This record gives sequence, C-alpha cells and structure tokens, in this order.
Amino acid sequence: MITVQPSAVRCGTIHGVGLGPGACDLMSVRADRLVRGARHIAYFRKAGRSGHARRIVDGMLRDDVTEFAMEYPVTTEIAVADPRYNDCLSAFYAGCIDHLAGLVRGGEDVVVLCEGDPFFYGSFMHLYTRLQTIAPVCVVPGITGMSGAWTASGAPITWGDDVLTVLMATLPEEDLVRRIRDTDALVVMKIGRHLGKLRRAVAAAGREDEAWLVEHAAMQDQRVTPLGEADAVTPYFSILLIHGQGRRP
Amino acid sequence: MITVQPSAVRCGTIHGVGLGPGACDLMSVRADRLVRGARHIAYFRKAGRSGHARRIVDGMLRDDVTEFAMEYPVTTEIAVADPRYNDCLSAFYAGCIDHLAGLVRGGEDVVVLCEGDPFFYGSFMHLYTRLQTIAPVCVVPGITGMSGAWTASGAPITWGDDVLTVLMATLPEEDLVRRIRDTDALVVMKIGRHLGKLRRAVAAAGREDEAWLVEHAAMQDQRVTPLGEADAVTPYFSILLIHGQGRRP
Repeated sequence: MITVQPSAVRCGTIHGVGLGPGACDLMSVRADRLVRGARHIAYFRKAGRSGHARRIVDGMLRDDVTEFAMEYPVTTEIAVADPRYNDCLSAFYAGCIDHLAGLVRGGEDVVVLCEGDPFFYGSFMHLYTRLQTIAPVCVVPGITGMSGAWTASGAPITWGDDVLTVLMATLPEEDLVRRIRDTDALVVMKIGRHLGKLRRAVAAAGREDEAWLVEHAAMQDQRVTPLGEADAVTPYFSILLIHGQGRRP
Repeated sequence: MITVQPSAVRCGTIHGVGLGPGACDLMSVRADRLVRGARHIAYFRKAGRSGHARRIVDGMLRDDVTEFAMEYPVTTEIAVADPRYNDCLSAFYAGCIDHLAGLVRGGEDVVVLCEGDPFFYGSFMHLYTRLQTIAPVCVVPGITGMSGAWTASGAPITWGDDVLTVLMATLPEEDLVRRIRDTDALVVMKIGRHLGKLRRAVAAAGREDEAWLVEHAAMQDQRVTPLGEADAVTPYFSILLIHGQGRRP
C-alpha cells in the first residue's frame, strides 16, 4: 500500500479573477476560461444577498463546482473609525484564509470572483496580502466599474493632458469639494448613503451641470442621469462622472 | 433586373473595441468575438511601425480580413502648441472618417482596434466624435494599461478611501510636483521623452522611494523597476505607479 505524504501533494493556486463591470461577456478570455474550469470558487457577499460577483457568473459554472461564500459580518452597522470594525473584519478575513489554505494545501485550485479589477479598491486585496506566505496567488486584471460607467455615458472620460481624479464618496465633504474643484475629469465611487454629501460637494465646487450619475453600468438595468435629475437614493455600485474636456484636434 | 438603391443598403456599424493592456487573452470575450469575426479592421499606428493594437490581435484574424492602417502624419515632429499640429491631425482624422464612412455606407461593419480602453486617453475618441452623425458606433470597454501595470507590480493600487490621481507626463513640471505631492495613489502615463522631468517632479514631491516604473505591462517583456533604478530611456507605453497605503483591517 502506498501512503501519499502530505508534502507530496502539489499546493494549489489561488486565482484572484477580475470579472469586469457586470456583463458576463465583458470578463477577459482568461477569466472566462478560469471561471468555467473551476472546481472551487469563492466570493464575498453581504449576508442574505446573492452577491454581485456570483451573479455575473450565473450559468457559467461546472455542475460539480464547490462554492465558498464569504459573508461580511458587518457592512455599515459599525462605524469604520470604531476599533471593533477592524477587529471584526480581521477575524472574518482570518476565517476565510483558514478555509482557503485548507483547500490549496489539499492540492485544490480556487478561483476567487472579484467584481471589476481585483487590485482597484477590491475586497480581494485583503485576502491577497494574507495569502502571500501560504500559496501561489495569480491575479487576473479586469475591466473596472468606472470603465463600464464612462462607456455607458457615451462619452470619453479623458482627452489629451486631462487630469483624472478618483475619489470615494466616504471622504469628508471639504476634501471632496477641494478635489472636485481641482481636477479635469472625475470619478466618484462608493456613493450609496453618501449621495447627499456628494451632491453638496459637487455644487460647492461649481460643477453641478457637468456631473452624471451612472447606475448598474454594463448591466441590463443600466441608467445614466444628469446628477441634478437623479433620485435621492442610489445603489452602492453607482458611479459619478465628470468628463474631461481636454485638447482635441 | 433588380437595381438595389443605395438607400436600401443597411448601414454598417463601427465597433470601437478595447483590446486591453497587451496579452491577447486579456481582451474581453465580447472583444475576442468581434475581432475574430471581423471582415474589416482599422487601427492607428506610427508610420513604419507594425502598431501595438495590431500586434495584440496577431493570429486572431480571418483570412479574408481587410485592414485599414491609419498612420499618424505627425507624432513629436511638430509641437502640440503649434497650430499646424492641430491642422495636420484634423486633416488626418477627416481622411480616416472618409474611408470608414465609405465602408459603413456600403453596409460593412468595421472593428477599430484600440489598446486599453477606447474612452480612456484613446485615439479612437477622435473618430468617435466625428462618426456620431455618420453611423452607429458601439464601444466595447477594455482593461486599461494602468490595470495591467499595477497587476504586474504585484500590489494593489488603492485601499479604503485612497485618492487616485492619473496624470500625463506631458504636463508642466510644477503641475506634476503639486499633484504628486497631493495624492495617495498615482498613475502617470505618456512618459517616453518626459522621463527626466517626471523623475525630478517625483523627487521634488518627496516620493522617490515609493515610485515604480512598469514597462510593457502584460506582455512577454514586462518589467517592473523601482524608479530610482530605472534606465534613462523608457518606451512610450511605460507607466509610473505609486501605490496607495490606505485603511486596511
């Protein structure tokens, strides 16, 4: 009888795979191949939701795929500045890593599904830094949500020497005002319940008439609205755009 | 005998297709399908060069494809501020539009190959604005060169509330210094012969030790170098990065 030593098992690879902004044919050919071939997938989601990343790959998975849903223990219930927020998320990520480490040590590859691009404000980065010493990690870049948004808007975001600034709506209002005033082109993400503050900041910067709100970019219910006409409530995945007007022959 | 009236011919569609940063399997599934199916492709290139966009699709094209290479009449020979620069490029774009308009009026679809994302500092935008009244234009977003660069660097570009600033190295030195000092994460593009100025600006902003130069991201000869150790000459497609260090549990 032959006993396989644990050390003889090939260590699996973790693939952090960018899925793009939402339409399944906007993921890269490389991502498409990895997702369709995966025996193990993992993805983040809010408890009780199906998860945006998981929805993008609906209909693409093997029949025998094993799914590991990593459900955030907290989203907005504890303030980011509260030390309990960090403690809570650190423990959550540690649990995710334990599970993933078990899979790769058993020789399994795992595809971690990431909306947009994994290295651009993505949750995957929190796994990535913790996995470095545990397993090989490969990252597949993706089309960002903001590319999906400016494509949906039907106008280029930047020309010539335009400066592009990317801001999170979670920043303090005075920072938003200063930076919105001082850029040619603008992208604002993580809007959700910060929409009121963001509207005031755009107005204070004198740029209300240039701003567009894009909801569900690259998805079936995509919607592009001048900020002045937008509803008071917007989904988390909304993106605000101001298009650059730089040099053009 | 039946005579087909010109008005009875279906007008073709122009597809502005983002090819991503360089590896052919990093284009989207939608882009891959359009490129492989195209009867007519068009792409920009410098006279005498094969063209970066054209190289990405090597081996993917139909045998009976018709190629329209749009060769820039000028790149750095005339200063951008010189009125002749604009005149020269305007005439060039007008010629491209004439040719493309002839194709779509004859009912042909055309795939315009675009490095990266068509609406992010892309040459396609100059065709896009001129084609609006001539033919239906569909844009397929792509993975940007900067996503390719930060993936190559092996580290996330932005965390938490980080501010990301995207600059062109063609800007005046004092603007570069001010903006490099005032951002968390940084991407600088269009470097080429502006590398010396950019190095001075990064040093004056006190951020030399954080800066990386990425050459040929996502291609076989990809190279990531600390800015302090980089050569004095770098290709046009180089990208400078400073990674954000924002909040992380």
